[in-house]
Amino acid sequence: MEAKLQELKKRLVEINDLKSAAELLYWDQATYMPSGGASARARQMATLERLAHEKFTDPAIGKLLEELRSCRESLDYDSDEASLIRVTQREYDRAVRIPPSFAEQLSSHSSASYEAWTKARPADDFSAIQPYLEKTLDLSRQLADFFPGYEHIADPLIDYEDYGMKASTLRVLFDELREQLVPIVEAITSQPMADDSCLHQNFPEAQQLAFGLEIIERLGYDFTRGRQDKTPHPFMIKFSLGDVRITTRVKENNLNEALFGAMHEAGHALYEQGISMDLESTPLADGASAGAHEAQSRLWENLVGHSRGFWTFYYPRLQEVFPDQLKPVSLDTFYRAINKVERSLIRTAADEVTYNLHVMIRFGLELDLLEGQLTVADLPQAWRERYQTDLGIAPPDDRDGVMQDIHWYSSTIGGRFQGYTLGNIMGAQFYEAALAAHPEIPEQIARGQFQTLLGWLKENIYRHGNKFTPSELIERVTGGPLSTEPYIKYLRKKYGELYSL
Amino acid sequence: MEAKLQELKKRLVEINDLKSAAELLYWDQATYMPSGGASARARQMATLERLAHEKFTDPAIGKLLEELRSCRESLDYDSDEASLIRVTQREYDRAVRIPPSFAEQLSSHSSASYEAWTKARPADDFSAIQPYLEKTLDLSRQLADFFPGYEHIADPLIDYEDYGMKASTLRVLFDELREQLVPIVEAITSQPMADDSCLHQNFPEAQQLAFGLEIIERLGYDFTRGRQDKTPHPFMIKFSLGDVRITTRVKENNLNEALFGAMHEAGHALYEQGISMDLESTPLADGASAGAHEAQSRLWENLVGHSRGFWTFYYPRLQEVFPDQLKPVSLDTFYRAINKVERSLIRTAADEVTYNLHVMIRFGLELDLLEGQLTVADLPQAWRERYQTDLGIAPPDDRDGVMQDIHWYSSTIGGRFQGYTLGNIMGAQFYEAALAAHPEIPEQIARGQFQTLLGWLKENIYRHGNKFTPSELIERVTGGPLSTEPYIKYLRKKYGELYSL
Repeated sequence: MEAKLQELKKRLVEINDLKSAAELLYWDQATYMPSGGASARARQMATLERLAHEKFTDPAIGKLLEELRSCRESLDYDSDEASLIRVTQREYDRAVRIPPSFAEQLSSHSSASYEAWTKARPADDFSAIQPYLEKTLDLSRQLADFFPGYEHIADPLIDYEDYGMKASTLRVLFDELREQLVPIVEAITSQPMADDSCLHQNFPEAQQLAFGLEIIERLGYDFTRGRQDKTPHPFMIKFSLGDVRITTRVKENNLNEALFGAMHEAGHALYEQGISMDLESTPLADGASAGAHEAQSRLWENLVGHSRGFWTFYYPRLQEVFPDQLKPVSLDTFYRAINKVERSLIRTAADEVTYNLHVMIRFGLELDLLEGQLTVADLPQAWRERYQTDLGIAPPDDRDGVMQDIHWYSSTIGGRFQGYTLGNIMGAQFYEAALAAHPEIPEQIARGQFQTLLGWLKENIYRHGNKFTPSELIERVTGGPLSTEPYIKYLRKKYGELYSL
Repeated sequence: MEAKLQELKKRLVEINDLKSAAELLYWDQATYMPSGGASARARQMATLERLAHEKFTDPAIGKLLEELRSCRESLDYDSDEASLIRVTQREYDRAVRIPPSFAEQLSSHSSASYEAWTKARPADDFSAIQPYLEKTLDLSRQLADFFPGYEHIADPLIDYEDYGMKASTLRVLFDELREQLVPIVEAITSQPMADDSCLHQNFPEAQQLAFGLEIIERLGYDFTRGRQDKTPHPFMIKFSLGDVRITTRVKENNLNEALFGAMHEAGHALYEQGISMDLESTPLADGASAGAHEAQSRLWENLVGHSRGFWTFYYPRLQEVFPDQLKPVSLDTFYRAINKVERSLIRTAADEVTYNLHVMIRFGLELDLLEGQLTVADLPQAWRERYQTDLGIAPPDDRDGVMQDIHWYSSTIGGRFQGYTLGNIMGAQFYEAALAAHPEIPEQIARGQFQTLLGWLKENIYRHGNKFTPSELIERVTGGPLSTEPYIKYLRKKYGELYSL
C-alpha cells in the first residue's frame, strides 16, 4: 500500500510541477512579459495545462486510487493520507468526465473571448462580444452536461469553485441575505453620505506601496516566501508553499485601491502560506473552496482592515507618511471615509454593505442564462433592470454594466460569483469563532498585534489546506452549518455605530 | 509527407513549450523569486526538463525522422523543411544515446555541486568542492563515452556547444593564436599602463541603467520583444522569438560592468531576435553554436562598443549624463581607459587582448583533466602555474583562481570554454565580411547608426538560426574556413594605434 501511495504522490507532484509552471507563465505575462511574447505564451500555457490534464486523467491514476480505496477506509479521515486519496479521487472523477478535445475547445474559446473583451469593453461595444458570450453559454451548458443527474444545471459549475454548494441552497441563502441587507442599505443611504474626500487627495505611488508592504508584513505575510508586484488587475498566485505571490495596483488619487487591495490579496496569501508543508505539491496544498479563500481575504481586508481598532493603531503612522494630506483629518473622519456606504456601479470598488448586492445580481443572471430564462442578447437590459431594482441605480453604458467583470469573458458562465458572497458570510462566521476563542483579539489589533488571530486561523483553517469540504470546514470551525447570522450581526453592529439603523 | 512533417512539428512545438517554460522558471529564480521558492523550483525545472527529454527521445520521433529521410533528401538543403529534419535528426541521435537515469544523475549532481560552489568559493575552500569536481569529471567522461569512436574524449562534449569542432583542431588553432597574442601582450604591458581612473568614480545605478538601455535600443534591441532585469550574473535568455530577455548588473564604482555588459548581452539577444519567425518554436530557432553566439555578443560589445567611432558619437552623450564625473575627461582618455590592457586574474573582466589567454588556460586544463594527465587534486596548482606562464601573474587564492568561473561547478568539464575564443575569432571574421560588403559601416557607427550592420548580420547570419553548422556558416558568410587572421589583424591595427607594437 505504501508503495502505491508513493507512486500516486510521485505522479501528483509531476502534475503539480506542470501546473505550477503554467501559473508562473501566467504571472510573468501579467507582470513583466513584453507584448511580443503574447502569442507563444498563450500556446505554452495551453500546452502545460493540457499535459497536466493528460497526466491526471491517465487511467493508471484511476487504478492506483482504486487500489488505495481500502487503505483510505482504514485510515483516520483527517489523516494526510486518507485526505489525499479522498480529494484526489474526487478531482479525478471530475477530470475524467471532460473529453480533452472539449477542454481544448473551451480553453481556446476563453482566450479568444478574453481578447475580444479587452477591446469591446473600452469601446462600450456589447454587440462585438455578444457572439463570444453566446458560445460561452453554450459551452458552459455542455460542460455541466458532462455531469448528468444534477439538480440545477449550474450545480456542476458551482461545484468546481465551491464544492458541495447547490443553486437551490444558495438561492435561499442569498434571498435571506438580500432581505436583511436591503433595509440596511435603505437606512444608511437615506442619511447624509460620509465625506471621503480625504481619500481622494494626491498620494504618491512609492509611499502608498511602501505603507501597504509595511502593513501586510505585520499582518504576517512572509516576504521570504512571497513578493508583491504591480498588475492592472490584482491577484494572488502560488508556485509552491514557499512562493506565494500577490499583485497590486495603485491609484494616486484614491487611497483605497492599493491599501485595501494589498490587505485583500495578503489575506488570500496568508491562507496559502499557512498550509502545512506536509501537503506541499499535492492536491491538498490549496484552499478549501473559492468561498473559503474569499473568507480570508475579506476577513483581513474588512473585519480587520476596515475596523476602528486597526486604524487606532495605524492611522497615526499613515499620517506620518502623508502629513500634508492627513494631518488635518481626524481618525473619526478617516474611519467614516473608508467605510462610506453608497449605491454604486462597480463591484470591486463597492463597500462591504452593498457589495453582496452586486454579487447576487450576477449570480441570479448566471442562473437565468443557464436555465434559458434569459438570452445573451437581453443580458445588458436585464443587468440594468436588476441594478435599478436592487441598488436603485443603473449603469449609463455597458462598459460599467454587463461588461465590467472579466469572469464571463474569460471562462464559463455559472459558478463564477457565489464565492464572493460565501466568502463574506464565512469570513464573519470564522471571525466570530476566533473571537469566541480569543476575546482579546480586537484589543490586540488596536495595538497592531495580529499573531493570535493569525495563529488561530492557521491552526483551525489554513494548515488543513484542501482536506475538508467547505461544509466540513465550517462545521469543524464553528460547530454549525453555513449561516448569514454572524455576518448580518457584524454589519448591524458596525454600521449601527456609524449610522442610525 | 506533409502530414508527417506536420506531426513532427507538432511534437517539436510541445517539447519547445516545455523547455521554454523551464527557461522561465530559471529566469524567475535569478530575478524575482523569493528564497522560499528555491527547493520546489529546482524540482519543477528538473520535471520539465525530464518531460522534454522523454518526449524528444520518444521512438515515434525517430520513426517520423526515418520516414522523412527521403523527403529531406529531395528538398533544397537550405530550405526550412530540410534543415528542420536534418538538425532534429542530429539532436535526436545525440539525445537517445543518453540514458534518462544518467541525465537525472548529472542534473542532480550539477545542482548539488553548484550549491556547494556558492559556499566554497567565498570561503576560498577548494577542498570542500574537490569531491564534487571529481564526480563531475567522472560523469563528464561517462557522458563522452556514450559517443564511442571519438578522436579525443573531449570531442563529444565540445560537440554539444560547438558542433563539429574537435580538440585536435582547436589545439592547433589556439596554439597559433597564443603565439600571436603573447608578443602583443608583452609589447603592450611593457609600456606605461593606461589610466582608467575615470571609470572608477561614483556613477549612480539609475543613470547607468538608463544609459545602457538607451544604447542597446539604438543598436536595435527590440524592447517590445524583450526586457532587461538585474541579476548577480548577467545572461541572455529566450522564451520565444517574441520574448528574448537580457539581464545586467551594476557597479557604481565601475562604469565598465553595466555599460559593456548590456551591449554584450544585447549582442546575444540581437542574434535571437533576428531569427526568422518561420523557425519559431522549432530546434532551428536557436543560435548556430556557442561560438557563433559569442561572436555576436563580442562583435557588439567590442568591435562596435569599444571602438573610437562609437564613442565619438556616444561620449558627449555620456558626459551629459555624468557631467561632474566626465566633463573634465577627454574622449581620448576615456577611449584609452575602456581599452586598457593588463595582466589580470578574472576572465570576465579581462580586456580583449588578454581575454583569450584566460580562455585557453581553461580549455587546456579541461583536456588534461579528461585525458587523465591532471588530477582534480592538482588542479589549483596547475591553474596557478598556467597563469604564471601565460599571463605572468598568479592568483593569491583559489577564490579568484580555479573557483572563479561557474562552468565546471554547474555542469560538465569539457566543452565549456572554447566557445568564448571561437566567438572572438568568428566575430572578427564576420565583421570583416560586413565591412567588405558595406565599407560605410564605421562612419555610420560614428554617427550612431547601426542599421546597415544589423541588417547585414540579420540577412547573413541571424535569420538562419540553427540551420547551418558553425563551419557551414563561416564558409557561407566569409567564403573561407575558420581563421584567426582577421582577429589578429583587428587587434594589431587597433592596439597599434594605442601603443607601439
